[in-house]
Amino acid sequence: MKSLKDIGELGLITKIRNWMATSCPELIRSIGDDVAVLDMGNKALLITTDILIEGIHFEKSWSNPFQLGRKAVAVNLSDIAAMGGRPRYFLISIGLPKHLPLSFVSLLYRGLKEEARRSQVGLIGGDTSLSQKIIINICLIGEGKKGDLLFRDGAKVGDDIYVSGTLGDSALGLMILQDGNLQRKPKGLIKKHLFPTPRIELGQALATKHLASAMIDLSDGLLSDARHILEESRVGAQIWEESIPISRLYRKWVRIYSKETYQIAMSGGEDYELLFTAPPNKRRRIISLARSIDHPITLVGQILPQKEGFHLVKKGGKKIPLNRLGYDHFK
Amino acid sequence: MKSLKDIGELGLITKIRNWMATSCPELIRSIGDDVAVLDMGNKALLITTDILIEGIHFEKSWSNPFQLGRKAVAVNLSDIAAMGGRPRYFLISIGLPKHLPLSFVSLLYRGLKEEARRSQVGLIGGDTSLSQKIIINICLIGEGKKGDLLFRDGAKVGDDIYVSGTLGDSALGLMILQDGNLQRKPKGLIKKHLFPTPRIELGQALATKHLASAMIDLSDGLLSDARHILEESRVGAQIWEESIPISRLYRKWVRIYSKETYQIAMSGGEDYELLFTAPPNKRRRIISLARSIDHPITLVGQILPQKEGFHLVKKGGKKIPLNRLGYDHFK
Repeated sequence: MKSLKDIGELGLITKIRNWMATSCPELIRSIGDDVAVLDMGNKALLITTDILIEGIHFEKSWSNPFQLGRKAVAVNLSDIAAMGGRPRYFLISIGLPKHLPLSFVSLLYRGLKEEARRSQVGLIGGDTSLSQKIIINICLIGEGKKGDLLFRDGAKVGDDIYVSGTLGDSALGLMILQDGNLQRKPKGLIKKHLFPTPRIELGQALATKHLASAMIDLSDGLLSDARHILEESRVGAQIWEESIPISRLYRKWVRIYSKETYQIAMSGGEDYELLFTAPPNKRRRIISLARSIDHPITLVGQILPQKEGFHLVKKGGKKIPLNRLGYDHFK
Repeated sequence: MKSLKDIGELGLITKIRNWMATSCPELIRSIGDDVAVLDMGNKALLITTDILIEGIHFEKSWSNPFQLGRKAVAVNLSDIAAMGGRPRYFLISIGLPKHLPLSFVSLLYRGLKEEARRSQVGLIGGDTSLSQKIIINICLIGEGKKGDLLFRDGAKVGDDIYVSGTLGDSALGLMILQDGNLQRKPKGLIKKHLFPTPRIELGQALATKHLASAMIDLSDGLLSDARHILEESRVGAQIWEESIPISRLYRKWVRIYSKETYQIAMSGGEDYELLFTAPPNKRRRIISLARSIDHPITLVGQILPQKEGFHLVKKGGKKIPLNRLGYDHFK
């Protein structure tokens, strides 16, 4: 008998898409994108939901409840940022063990509130339940102008591929957090894992200035998330390994865990930076945008015809086909 | 050190309300009601979320995945029904164990789809994750006319208190499901527990015809849910025990579990019928509405001034003060 392990998360999502196929006139985007988009007349309503489960997405011992609360909101904000939307409201369903100290819950909510305040998002409802493990499900609602929003299916052959920030810090930070052998741990990388910054301002700027053709946030890892854009846009791509932006701290610490400098930066998840495509004639405006928001944007590859597939160009020009996916919950 | 056990679910919700106090101009209703209400200009957007956790809200052995899927959607539909809204879309976050058979997941989604189809609600998004226990979180979005929607704070002194359907069948059905000693189990009561029917049509009719002053759905039990209305409306009430509607099956089976005929009907949860208040001059129109939708509506009590408290009137006129609450997850 087939189990979830056999088909994996993408297989499951494809099945769910087939099982549930919905058609309603106001629905602009649905399952497949991380955010559902509803046509509300003069504007579009964006709705996304993410679940965090103790023992799967986090351990109580790695982070304090304040950090956990912030991250729970941040990952949802990132989904709205990836469309260039403006986050507005959220609902939180929370499962909590009976003997959890009230101080834990209070700190958790302080974290939720702090992250929400930073992005001017208001808590408007939720549900509470007893649970063996801590469960946090957030449903976040945002809005945007229909003509501005960016999706995964807009990449065109010849487009540039960009990423914001540096990649791999969060994944490496997690490895360091989990590593019992390290005496001294670099705070910078761990912080990137515990306090991801959703790129709301960048997403909105790219959307409202019409600078990008497709966009996604980097939650599963560069290669895996790029693949979503390639599949939805029906195109291929090449990524230039040496151009992938990595931080000084990453370069220093990655050697402990990988002989390949860029491996973790390409396949590690939870950077919550943005990956987007744009026609080459927008290069100058994109560089100037990066400067104005004081956050790096790096050209890392190019969109190719679908028949050319997806590959990595190593230093020296050697091409490696990219068949592997990123992290799969069920495998 | 205080834990959740010490303050209980209502205590927690009060704390959350204080921690998170949000003010935004479009927010008509927020934490405290089960549904958040946003002013979208010509209409109001209703958003509710509910979490179901294996081992807390259900056991795999009691129900099949199809039933589970239907119920997960139904309980959210009931929240929208309780405001007189029209349910439209839902998102589902789901946590599933790695070795769960694919057939289980497929049946679960068939159940979700069937319940959604009955109410013309479309799945527009979600999240999937690995989890030790099955977790189903639904976020349901509905709409309504601002002037029509019913809340918990509208009950006035002198109003009648009504409930729809019969009460206690679901709670009794659950006891029977869990009872290892019974050879023959009444399907009717068990079905009421496994397949609750959200009263969407009734809720909408009461709202659009302006027949009710306050409304709530019966998820925690008559006494507990009535108390929400009393607190939000700042009023007291009396409930006439003998007028509480119970089914023939309930009357027959309740004796096994309780010497008090009405005990389970008053304090058992998950009926998902509607409790509403209405001025006495609407009686005739309410009776005629019950007839037209072919579902019983019963007058069970009266709203009193707040200083008179909340009490039960037994057969013969004896008054019992009602201090006990319904089910509390954390106690």
